[in-house]
Amino acid sequence: MSGTQALTALRGQYPVLVPGEVWLVGAGPGDPGLLTLDALAGLLQADVVVHDALVDARVLALARSGAQILFAGKRGGRPSTAQEDISAQLVALAHGGLRVLRLKGGDPFVFGRGGEEILALAAAGVPFRVIPGVTAGLSGLASACIPATMRGVNQAIILATGHDPHEEGAMDWSALARTRQPIVLYMGLRNLENIAAALMRGGLSGSTPAAVIASATLAGQQVLVSRLECIASDARAAKFAAPAIVVVGDIVHIRQQLLDASAHNTAPAPDAGAALPRGSSECEG
Amino acid sequence: MSGTQALTALRGQYPVLVPGEVWLVGAGPGDPGLLTLDALAGLLQADVVVHDALVDARVLALARSGAQILFAGKRGGRPSTAQEDISAQLVALAHGGLRVLRLKGGDPFVFGRGGEEILALAAAGVPFRVIPGVTAGLSGLASACIPATMRGVNQAIILATGHDPHEEGAMDWSALARTRQPIVLYMGLRNLENIAAALMRGGLSGSTPAAVIASATLAGQQVLVSRLECIASDARAAKFAAPAIVVVGDIVHIRQQLLDASAHNTAPAPDAGAALPRGSSECEG
Repeated sequence: MSGTQALTALRGQYPVLVPGEVWLVGAGPGDPGLLTLDALAGLLQADVVVHDALVDARVLALARSGAQILFAGKRGGRPSTAQEDISAQLVALAHGGLRVLRLKGGDPFVFGRGGEEILALAAAGVPFRVIPGVTAGLSGLASACIPATMRGVNQAIILATGHDPHEEGAMDWSALARTRQPIVLYMGLRNLENIAAALMRGGLSGSTPAAVIASATLAGQQVLVSRLECIASDARAAKFAAPAIVVVGDIVHIRQQLLDASAHNTAPAPDAGAALPRGSSECEG
Repeated sequence: MSGTQALTALRGQYPVLVPGEVWLVGAGPGDPGLLTLDALAGLLQADVVVHDALVDARVLALARSGAQILFAGKRGGRPSTAQEDISAQLVALAHGGLRVLRLKGGDPFVFGRGGEEILALAAAGVPFRVIPGVTAGLSGLASACIPATMRGVNQAIILATGHDPHEEGAMDWSALARTRQPIVLYMGLRNLENIAAALMRGGLSGSTPAAVIASATLAGQQVLVSRLECIASDARAAKFAAPAIVVVGDIVHIRQQLLDASAHNTAPAPDAGAALPRGSSECEG
């Protein structure tokens, strides 16, 4: 049975990727179980898959046999293909009459530069479709048993890039701090020391709960819980590495409440989908 | 061929929902194509599905035949089941030895009260798993061809509940306004007049671009583009109804750039996944 036959058995119908078209698709945070049905439909139909560094190998393995798999990765601190080159490549592949799947980690429109790519496609007359994915920041929190929102705790959640606050045109971290709403940093490890300092200058207490979730949703997921004033040094001491997301705010407490509730009864531990690996804080500050 | 056989053919393996366990699952924004593979695995295994009002009928139709489908909806302005009752029901079903799927629109942890439910499950000794979904706010934007983030435009995106700013314990909308980052309102129509006023008091210009996306990702999706100062009256005049999300910020401009780029060449229009229905603004303000 082919993949498309199986998909037909499951759904009856799915969108058709036609030659000369580009689908801009989110692959989710890593775990192939968090891929969407439409993303899978794209993988089963594409002639060529152009993917980023953060797309899991098990996701790429779902592409139909014979599909060409091209790497066009962009990742902080590593050699990367210029964005203009990627857009030009997508246009060229589509003009060549191929069914093109542009596959990005997480959601293509959340810090994924998907907007730039569809503008380039539209300008070149290439038909496209956008298929949202499960974004890494929110699912990474869920995977660490930290609800993104909790009644009585927060009424908003801020998703932000972890760019250096000393760079020109940088975000106003003080303004973010003054919202008193939790902040999720994408690619948050590299500039974490500076960002934490900027948030504290903005009025956030150093004792605000903070957590780092590395390799979220994957078998090697690591969670570290600490406080804003020492999350950067703790993450360094624990040798946490990218990809990682960082969350700052009182919602981090919920994780401990869950651990405590689970420990106070005889239930088996929640299983891997919402694993509760115990992070440790080495901060003495 | 059964659904689980088809899923096996596609993926080889999937997580097992065991009797007495509860999966808390996001169903995505509506379009069944945005369901995740693990959510589908849950639907194909569950003895009972406890769902919210915003879960699409086509998603529920994917449940295995014989599964009991229970409605436990909560929706603004309509009769709803108390949250405590829902949690107690989940515990009772699990203690009865059933495979329980708790299915919520969007992502269960983004304004979905999933945190309260897993705390109740943990306290009662019920094993659980959380499966994130595609959140309605971000995918609704994508569906209207508005990228949630765009290099050079924004470095963060704020997801917020559209609660009345005059309620006790309400959000500091002025602080949100001062971040100068785009804001996505969930359930944003009912209090839109008051929220828009609060954001303008906080310093956001009345000319800030704003959009309403109703029934996002569904066949009846409607998009209205306007400005902050008249988005509420425009939405009322156009008879937009819940479920709807609202977005305020310069990223709304990207939609028009895409429409213009598409209009300036001979390409077929982007298809339904990223449809570009033309919203109209009736605001003269």
